[in-house]
Amino acid sequence: MTRMTSTAPGQLVVTDRTRHRRLREQGSVNRSDLDAILAAGFICHLGVLLDGVPLVVPTVYGATADHLYLHGSVASRSLVKAPAQTVCVTVTHVDGLVLARSVFEHGINYRSACIYGIPRPISDPDELLQGLRVLTEQCAPGQWEYARQPTKRELAATRLLALDLTEASVKTRSGPPDDADSPDGSLKVWAGVLPIHRRWGDLEPDPALAAAIEPPPHLRSIANTTMP
Amino acid sequence: MTRMTSTAPGQLVVTDRTRHRRLREQGSVNRSDLDAILAAGFICHLGVLLDGVPLVVPTVYGATADHLYLHGSVASRSLVKAPAQTVCVTVTHVDGLVLARSVFEHGINYRSACIYGIPRPISDPDELLQGLRVLTEQCAPGQWEYARQPTKRELAATRLLALDLTEASVKTRSGPPDDADSPDGSLKVWAGVLPIHRRWGDLEPDPALAAAIEPPPHLRSIANTTMP
Repeated sequence: MTRMTSTAPGQLVVTDRTRHRRLREQGSVNRSDLDAILAAGFICHLGVLLDGVPLVVPTVYGATADHLYLHGSVASRSLVKAPAQTVCVTVTHVDGLVLARSVFEHGINYRSACIYGIPRPISDPDELLQGLRVLTEQCAPGQWEYARQPTKRELAATRLLALDLTEASVKTRSGPPDDADSPDGSLKVWAGVLPIHRRWGDLEPDPALAAAIEPPPHLRSIANTTMP
Repeated sequence: MTRMTSTAPGQLVVTDRTRHRRLREQGSVNRSDLDAILAAGFICHLGVLLDGVPLVVPTVYGATADHLYLHGSVASRSLVKAPAQTVCVTVTHVDGLVLARSVFEHGINYRSACIYGIPRPISDPDELLQGLRVLTEQCAPGQWEYARQPTKRELAATRLLALDLTEASVKTRSGPPDDADSPDGSLKVWAGVLPIHRRWGDLEPDPALAAAIEPPPHLRSIANTTMP
């Protein structure tokens, strides 16, 4: 079902699933575009088949050069079922509204990646610890060394999956609407982009925290900054 | 497979799919919580089975009191296949990082809803127009009346689906980490929340726009405001 085509270095493998059919100008086969999208976030949506229905679960990820880590409780049904099937993991960043002269040409500026594969459950203790480190550092770099690391009991309660970053469909849109050169370009309608910005806010201490404990530099340095 | 239980007014129907199994304190069966999550955004992730694989597609939605509208090109494979199956549509808002004393207790503050159902394709011209109005107004209230509305030809190129808002799983987490009262509470580790804020930015006019065309009040009033 899935046909592979040969790829140049730095390019993603193109399959039946990842071939860009429509809006091809929004598609990318550059591995670097995939890496940039993954580096800019830490939440994905995992698609996994449960009792015949495609469940879509928001969850944290961590990315290395080779794969994506997902984790959760050992009791999580979606993580139990995922390694027996091809799943789809989608990472999406919504960058703005594209406000065209016509409703039909309205759209979204975005960056997204759909990654396909059969996830591998990680049972090796060293790789489990390494994967959890990647996941933690994806969310808040510095926290793995700063916070208390997992105990054996906590590791035993955690399921970790690894998904190869080989088969992926990357799509992006940026810039103004496309209808300036159409007959609609002469309409007296404002057109442009309304961007969306994501920012880290102020650090909010746990009310139960001892007053003497100050936030560490790696958290102070990302508070009140713009997210990529 | 899916057992229904009777529900009180204002409560969501609980089925095998939407019953909260773990972290029950994060689950809600209040219809008002679902409505609030849908009202706070306009992007969802549609899970649809294509060639045996659960594809996860980011797309725009519009919500009424009764259903969710999804739209796209008539050539979209995911929208062609969706009406023949039970799909899952997930809306997620990521509100912050929960920074606990231990890595294990780290988490995300979030609001999410998974809606299940067999989408109904809309062919009636009046409902098609009404659904597209709902979708447009969900993204940018005021744009439907302001921009050029769809032509018959554009309507014929658009596929619209409606999904009933009857079966949904709603989950939220907010507030500080949960480990203050555990043995970790005595660790000299900062704990709290790093919130994430989403904001609309400055309106960016299309460079091809005539200088005399000013942005309308409904766009000026949302620029530079915080998103819900």
